[in-house]
Amino acid sequence: MPRYKLTVEYDGTPYAGWQRQADEPSVQAVIEEAAHRLCGTNPVLFGAGRTDSGVHATGQVAHIDLPKAYAGGTVRDALNAHMRDEPVVILSAEEVGADFDARFSARKRWYRYRIFNRRAPAAILRGKVWWVSKLLDTEAMHEAAQVLAGTHDFTTFRSTHCQAKNPIRTLEKLEVVRANGEEIHIVAMAQSFLHNQIRSFAGTLKLVGEGRWTATDVSEALKAKDRTACGPVAPPYGLYLTAIEYTNEPKRTLPPYPAKD
Amino acid sequence: MPRYKLTVEYDGTPYAGWQRQADEPSVQAVIEEAAHRLCGTNPVLFGAGRTDSGVHATGQVAHIDLPKAYAGGTVRDALNAHMRDEPVVILSAEEVGADFDARFSARKRWYRYRIFNRRAPAAILRGKVWWVSKLLDTEAMHEAAQVLAGTHDFTTFRSTHCQAKNPIRTLEKLEVVRANGEEIHIVAMAQSFLHNQIRSFAGTLKLVGEGRWTATDVSEALKAKDRTACGPVAPPYGLYLTAIEYTNEPKRTLPPYPAKD
Repeated sequence: MPRYKLTVEYDGTPYAGWQRQADEPSVQAVIEEAAHRLCGTNPVLFGAGRTDSGVHATGQVAHIDLPKAYAGGTVRDALNAHMRDEPVVILSAEEVGADFDARFSARKRWYRYRIFNRRAPAAILRGKVWWVSKLLDTEAMHEAAQVLAGTHDFTTFRSTHCQAKNPIRTLEKLEVVRANGEEIHIVAMAQSFLHNQIRSFAGTLKLVGEGRWTATDVSEALKAKDRTACGPVAPPYGLYLTAIEYTNEPKRTLPPYPAKD
Repeated sequence: MPRYKLTVEYDGTPYAGWQRQADEPSVQAVIEEAAHRLCGTNPVLFGAGRTDSGVHATGQVAHIDLPKAYAGGTVRDALNAHMRDEPVVILSAEEVGADFDARFSARKRWYRYRIFNRRAPAAILRGKVWWVSKLLDTEAMHEAAQVLAGTHDFTTFRSTHCQAKNPIRTLEKLEVVRANGEEIHIVAMAQSFLHNQIRSFAGTLKLVGEGRWTATDVSEALKAKDRTACGPVAPPYGLYLTAIEYTNEPKRTLPPYPAKD
């Protein structure tokens, strides 16, 4: 059975998250249903990142085995046609080897947290950004973020429901940048993250941006290895899974019209 | 009664349009209700552009007379607090003279039509852009747009429901540009527009971008002064009212934190 690597964009608002649930809509179920309508069988989808309810993606990656071979462009267009009523889109589909595993082969996961920082709330971007009305100090946030970069026990910054056995992770990048005029983006990259880790970072760094916390407070919270030392957890709707990198494959921006089409 | 100039951003999706309707939600009614909750009376709002159902705005302007004087920032924040459940936001409120009329004093109206031009549909921007899957020739569209710029009888490019007595308008600017990587924007500016005029331009210029129409075809459609010569009307959800200019007042981008606050 040929295996396909799918790159997926979705608006997480109407879903209980990436992963299939018994009673609630999920991104995985939407794509699996489209695949069922394409090929008649019930293929199972494996995603690189199991995003939470309300979290968005512009570069989620998943793999799926289909019962027969199709051209990549056919898989992409057919799945998109079957999903036209849902805010889930296949950006690209390409045949890969049977040793490709979207989840376990992933080497770098990139996330972006979008803070909307102006006096007035968001109307057009409502549900796509976290509105913070007080002017934030981006440089102070970036400086404090560097306390978190590197290899640490991130017990403070993970959900009490996190199921990972090991709370130690290597955060390869955590940058805070101004973007799109009125936004502040927190860009995070690691091989893997703990549950709610980036939203915990975002809520904590917002306190720094407001001048309520210093980089030293962040350092002490990290060292405490205590969930109650964390700042508030930022809402899910500001978070985007933007890219997954695999071994020997650089991060890339997908062209709107792939050359092979 | 002091008069206030309001600059307004809204997501047009849930509304029957700007103008108050008997039985359907409208942007005007949302803001008037917020003003009622602020001051107890029933102030009437006058908008510069009566946008259609589903059309968005990032720079609509309206005026309203309130029964007592408030600081501009207070009007903005109080109205926003009362509208927190609606995708309608006051970007700024400033006291103006009694001779300021948002509609009749307006000298230049700016609109932007957003085409989302990639192979895969929009997920994150669903409902905020018009998805066109075929790669469009932006330069050909821009060239054909210049046929429409200037003073013409725009009978071909207005709705049969348009109530304006005179179909002649002076289109001061009609530009087609690539934007945000995957988008094509049609930027239009005139003192006033006819009903559905920009959406008629967008649908017609899309035919040019696809290579189905030439600039000559557009010229002939214009000269025909016949509604049936128009291309298809583009959907409302790609259209944004972006700015209104008044006499002796240059177009400006509102800063996220006005200096006077």
